[in-house]
Amino acid sequence: MGHNTPRDTSPLVSVLTIDTMNPNVKNVEYAVRGPIVQRAVQIEKELREGMKKPFTEVIKANIGDAHAMGQQPITFFRQVLALCSYPELLKDNMFPEDAKSRARRILQACGGSSLGAYSASQGIDCVRQDVARYIERRDGGVPCDPDNVYLTSGASDGIVTMLKLLVCGEGASKTGVMISIPQYPLYSAALAELGAVQVNYYLNEEKCWSMDLSELERSLAEARKHCNPKVLCIINPGNPTGQVQSRQCIEDVIRFAAKEHLFLMADEVYQDNVYAEGCQFHSFKKVLFELGPQYSNTVELVSFHSTSKCYMGECGFRGGYMEVINMDPEVKAQLIKLVSVRLCPAVPGQALMDMVVNSPQPGEPSYTTFMKERTATLSLLAEKAKLTEEMLNTVPGITCNPVQGAMYSFPNISLPQKAIKEAKALGQAPDMFYCMKMLEETGICLVPGSGFGQKDGTYHFRMTILPPTDKLKLLLAKVKEFHQKFTRQYS
Amino acid sequence: MGHNTPRDTSPLVSVLTIDTMNPNVKNVEYAVRGPIVQRAVQIEKELREGMKKPFTEVIKANIGDAHAMGQQPITFFRQVLALCSYPELLKDNMFPEDAKSRARRILQACGGSSLGAYSASQGIDCVRQDVARYIERRDGGVPCDPDNVYLTSGASDGIVTMLKLLVCGEGASKTGVMISIPQYPLYSAALAELGAVQVNYYLNEEKCWSMDLSELERSLAEARKHCNPKVLCIINPGNPTGQVQSRQCIEDVIRFAAKEHLFLMADEVYQDNVYAEGCQFHSFKKVLFELGPQYSNTVELVSFHSTSKCYMGECGFRGGYMEVINMDPEVKAQLIKLVSVRLCPAVPGQALMDMVVNSPQPGEPSYTTFMKERTATLSLLAEKAKLTEEMLNTVPGITCNPVQGAMYSFPNISLPQKAIKEAKALGQAPDMFYCMKMLEETGICLVPGSGFGQKDGTYHFRMTILPPTDKLKLLLAKVKEFHQKFTRQYS
Ligand SMILES: Cc1ncc(COP(=O)(O)O)c(C=O)c1O
Ligand SMILES: Cc1ncc(COP(=O)(O)O)c(C=O)c1O
Repeated sequence: MGHNTPRDTSPLVSVLTIDTMNPNVKNVEYAVRGPIVQRAVQIEKELREGMKKPFTEVIKANIGDAHAMGQQPITFFRQVLALCSYPELLKDNMFPEDAKSRARRILQACGGSSLGAYSASQGIDCVRQDVARYIERRDGGVPCDPDNVYLTSGASDGIVTMLKLLVCGEGASKTGVMISIPQYPLYSAALAELGAVQVNYYLNEEKCWSMDLSELERSLAEARKHCNPKVLCIINPGNPTGQVQSRQCIEDVIRFAAKEHLFLMADEVYQDNVYAEGCQFHSFKKVLFELGPQYSNTVELVSFHSTSKCYMGECGFRGGYMEVINMDPEVKAQLIKLVSVRLCPAVPGQALMDMVVNSPQPGEPSYTTFMKERTATLSLLAEKAKLTEEMLNTVPGITCNPVQGAMYSFPNISLPQKAIKEAKALGQAPDMFYCMKMLEETGICLVPGSGFGQKDGTYHFRMTILPPTDKLKLLLAKVKEFHQKFTRQYS
Repeated sequence: MGHNTPRDTSPLVSVLTIDTMNPNVKNVEYAVRGPIVQRAVQIEKELREGMKKPFTEVIKANIGDAHAMGQQPITFFRQVLALCSYPELLKDNMFPEDAKSRARRILQACGGSSLGAYSASQGIDCVRQDVARYIERRDGGVPCDPDNVYLTSGASDGIVTMLKLLVCGEGASKTGVMISIPQYPLYSAALAELGAVQVNYYLNEEKCWSMDLSELERSLAEARKHCNPKVLCIINPGNPTGQVQSRQCIEDVIRFAAKEHLFLMADEVYQDNVYAEGCQFHSFKKVLFELGPQYSNTVELVSFHSTSKCYMGECGFRGGYMEVINMDPEVKAQLIKLVSVRLCPAVPGQALMDMVVNSPQPGEPSYTTFMKERTATLSLLAEKAKLTEEMLNTVPGITCNPVQGAMYSFPNISLPQKAIKEAKALGQAPDMFYCMKMLEETGICLVPGSGFGQKDGTYHFRMTILPPTDKLKLLLAKVKEFHQKFTRQYS
């Protein structure tokens, strides 16, 4: 390089190879759609082609994708989306009036009254206003300024955007980002891509995956030896671990962030998914404001939400928002510039986010159906959470914390030494070896704990509670049978 | 840093400030939604609040957003989207059969038959197959493998993803990316964010913004002195410059890339937007294959398309695809991993992309209306392209190349020395000063040439040809009047 040397006219080596590509991208790992899932897709194809297997279908419990597992969309949401997509339908009287008025309101806020116009990069004004009012209601009146709300392409987009703003430096001054282990692998992937330092803090499996202050302190002190930790990420309710944090715990975390000068990122996409008795969702924003002005005026916080989870499960629309608190105004201008480059989040997803935060109200024609659908979905999830925990705990060698919230259980599995050895000989993580074998023998697709991180020497898998009850029961029975067989085989 | 020192409990300085944020993000510039547009939004608000101005409305010609300018969506596309959003409508007989069958086909390919399920990260299989068949038809039978097609969130997403894969290195081995000047500022923004070296090559304004081989050679030789140039980006038809490249030019560029070992990125989002007689769209893929196997088997190419432009103008749905040719299989695996992290592009946008590549066929009930709508939109754009060129060229001091394609004219404006001095005194680019003044005095919102890059000492503005004909005429008359007044004022 550096010289204008003539090149060969037919280069045998590509410009872009595994050796010349961005090494940060190469370092990214992403388990939720990793080798297990690729093999599951292959097996489905083999089954369709008539290949004989010890099972007739693949049951996917690897990803929090509710509709793919048969959950039905909320009628009202889809009516409004159809009306917005094809406004001719507004003339019809097959749609309820409240669906029509929501659609008209959204269309009026769109350029040329069309979902097909780019919106403001921060998101449609009236949607951001509705989000702000939703947050205020949710948080018992704590004020929310729509200027602090940014619509995003799913929560993923918001998380990556915020990390992109925050990460800088080299060597010992490189930004460190504290994430829980186990974690949702978007975080580790984004950090690898940005070249940031991933700083692990471990959730306490013995105490139902709660956050320990002492562990946060340990992790931070360690990290300060080699990088500049300035961000603390929390997922509540938790993925993959299904815990719901107590109010006390959230207070502790906020005080810790204030004391240690950390920027808080609260991933609250499962805010409606709380099932266990005695558990309740507390937003970081609300707790922050209840701690009083010395916290609420200083601690920097961003919170993420999404249309993908809760009772909606509308993953494909890529709707989401983030709210930033106490963000420096100059940085805000930079954030607006940054999101402008990609033009805007998908407008149908913005419309859907609007319906989530501005759902049918008592007295409106769609209210009863909406509430019925919402409640049915959430109750069914609560049942399946209980069922999963109970069934898994009947298996010797599997220990499962209560699924207090979110959509996952993350049981601890004991693996025989012989299996661990065999896996290591194959260069595989032992729980990957286990999950891959389960897939081949039973058609059940889970994600190994190693894809999320876990304490050394412990093994887990993550399974969603989303399959329909019948299938979930079948799945749990098969897991039990497989685990027992596996244990016998390797003992 | 590097030590576990106690922090102040109420830090006066934020964690994230303009000084501690990611400096690459700080370096990003983005003119299309920059200060002019922000001021335009403000002025609109002032007008609504009754403030007196020398005009009654803001006319936006700053962004290629067809629906926002009143272009109507294609009926068939929106019918299918409504059906997919709310499949109850499939039972109705108000929709044509071909719309219903398209909707059924898309829904069958979605998890749980719902737009609300995550799709495969690379995009829905059947949509990628339809894209491949479209490309084959477009390119006169040159084969296209659906495995090489990736659906994206608008073309923006694809462009940024590819650059992310390609960029690496530090100092003199840092990746250089050649982009045309003037350019679409997504490119410079993405390069700044990734910390890559932007390598400028200038389009030839005298020859209707064509690409000169000698200029490519000059630019590359320069760049090789200080970085590792390995990518060449082309926009055809051009934004902001509106040119359509000749077949000869494309051949030359491909031979150049082969000889110089450059990865080609062809931004072909305006592939249907060709208006000038004698001009025709030639895809880089087709020309590459026509050059024979020593090129088609070796030159690495990625081409981008989008639902945002052409006759559709469906920007808000964020649909798009990219096709990669001759990509190293190991890198392909890395690309699939990378796109997995963000889960998937918005599914309604994927559905829309499918309709674009699989539009109504002769004999189907929607064919006639579809063709009428498509042709009307493209003819109107052709008329407005002509009108814009002609009107602008009547203004002394404004010189405008023919708008051969895309949606923009990028006229050269002569600015009096006094104006240039005054602008510089204010720390503004002279054409920013000019455009800002035009906005304040006439309500017309254009983007200064400096936002796209231009030869030193030349000044331009970019205006879209999208406003409705009446408004476009009014706009052009006002531009003329303003330019004359401005010239008098500063002479
Ligand atoms: C904790 C958590 N955060 C963020 C996301 C991203 O979701 P989306 O981008 O679909 O909103 C997920 C998805 O599973 C998640 O579990
Ligand atoms: C040349 C060019 N490429 C890419 C884009 C991005 O468009 P989108 O992301 O909406 O597909 C645009 C938008 O104006 C463009 O002009």
